[in-house]
Amino acid sequence: MNLGDLGRFEKQMQFLEEIDKLKGIFRQSYLMDQSRKENDAEHSWHLAVYAIFLLEYANSPSQVILLQALKMILIHDLVEIDAGDTYCYDLDGMKDKEEREQRAADRIFNILPKDQAKDLRALWNEFEAGLTPTSQYARALDRFHPLWHNIKTDRKSWREHNVRKSTVLLRNQDIKIGCPKIWPEVERQIDLAVEAGDLLPE
Amino acid sequence: MNLGDLGRFEKQMQFLEEIDKLKGIFRQSYLMDQSRKENDAEHSWHLAVYAIFLLEYANSPSQVILLQALKMILIHDLVEIDAGDTYCYDLDGMKDKEEREQRAADRIFNILPKDQAKDLRALWNEFEAGLTPTSQYARALDRFHPLWHNIKTDRKSWREHNVRKSTVLLRNQDIKIGCPKIWPEVERQIDLAVEAGDLLPE
Repeated sequence: MNLGDLGRFEKQMQFLEEIDKLKGIFRQSYLMDQSRKENDAEHSWHLAVYAIFLLEYANSPSQVILLQALKMILIHDLVEIDAGDTYCYDLDGMKDKEEREQRAADRIFNILPKDQAKDLRALWNEFEAGLTPTSQYARALDRFHPLWHNIKTDRKSWREHNVRKSTVLLRNQDIKIGCPKIWPEVERQIDLAVEAGDLLPE
Repeated sequence: MNLGDLGRFEKQMQFLEEIDKLKGIFRQSYLMDQSRKENDAEHSWHLAVYAIFLLEYANSPSQVILLQALKMILIHDLVEIDAGDTYCYDLDGMKDKEEREQRAADRIFNILPKDQAKDLRALWNEFEAGLTPTSQYARALDRFHPLWHNIKTDRKSWREHNVRKSTVLLRNQDIKIGCPKIWPEVERQIDLAVEAGDLLPE
């Protein structure tokens, strides 16, 4: 279909239909009741609610623009519709992640009318770069949410993937940057996991 | 567990864990690929993205506080964790919906620290009352999202429940109030559904 033929509302609705596919992109995190893994749409929703209620733990709460953080969180995983979810401890998969995601952004965002596509790209770029207090807060929560889910579901995804302590510490530095007040609790939980044998020491 | 014994962060995290249950509350709307029905967490996420990109169709866009609208949308269905999803064309189920939802709000919101529980209740009350431009916009989208999903999935949920045109028109007045520019398209789609025999005339 030639998008040039579509009116503004039709383009917007076509984009909103397309992103329904996010509900079929499954992650490695389990639901709290461990009945199944969660998908990206559920993760994005949950993360956005985290952002509403955990703002006080941001590095500099007064510099976080919450509206912008919520927007970022709600759209940050859309590229996974084409690029798929890369497990954050899958170091091989990480290698071409950026390229796959850039291509996905080109296709998916451009279903929107030009002005909105441009705004969306800028929003996603800000999230990806992680240079502003707002994006650092959003990125910290994007790490913290699956970490907390994993801790509260018997650390099942760490056990399933034989994850190492050093990898977890490295991959979760974004929490230290964006939500430094939560970091000591994260470190404590990581040590408990090593003690329990659910995370490889190193 | 006595919540009085818990620190602030623990209460917040307990609330954020509790609301994971929203991912298990299923609705009558199908995913776009019709593979299954969607749950409340997925609906809330999708609705929030609608709110970002359809603001221009609000009754008075400049009077809508988008941050507030997104917050409302993200939390509006939490009460269904206890009260369950009431299909919007189930007139019997509608009768005690309010009472069930008020009880649910009492329990779920109060897991949070007092100040946040109070803010959340005020937010939900504003959504429920639908008296402000912001809540009217959020409510319009909350109707429009399942309606559009149904239209784009062969009107399956209307057919499954033998829904009448008059019921749909009545239940979707919130779209007319909050997003009047979208309403003519909604009416057109309803007429098409009647013509196709997917909606009972009347």
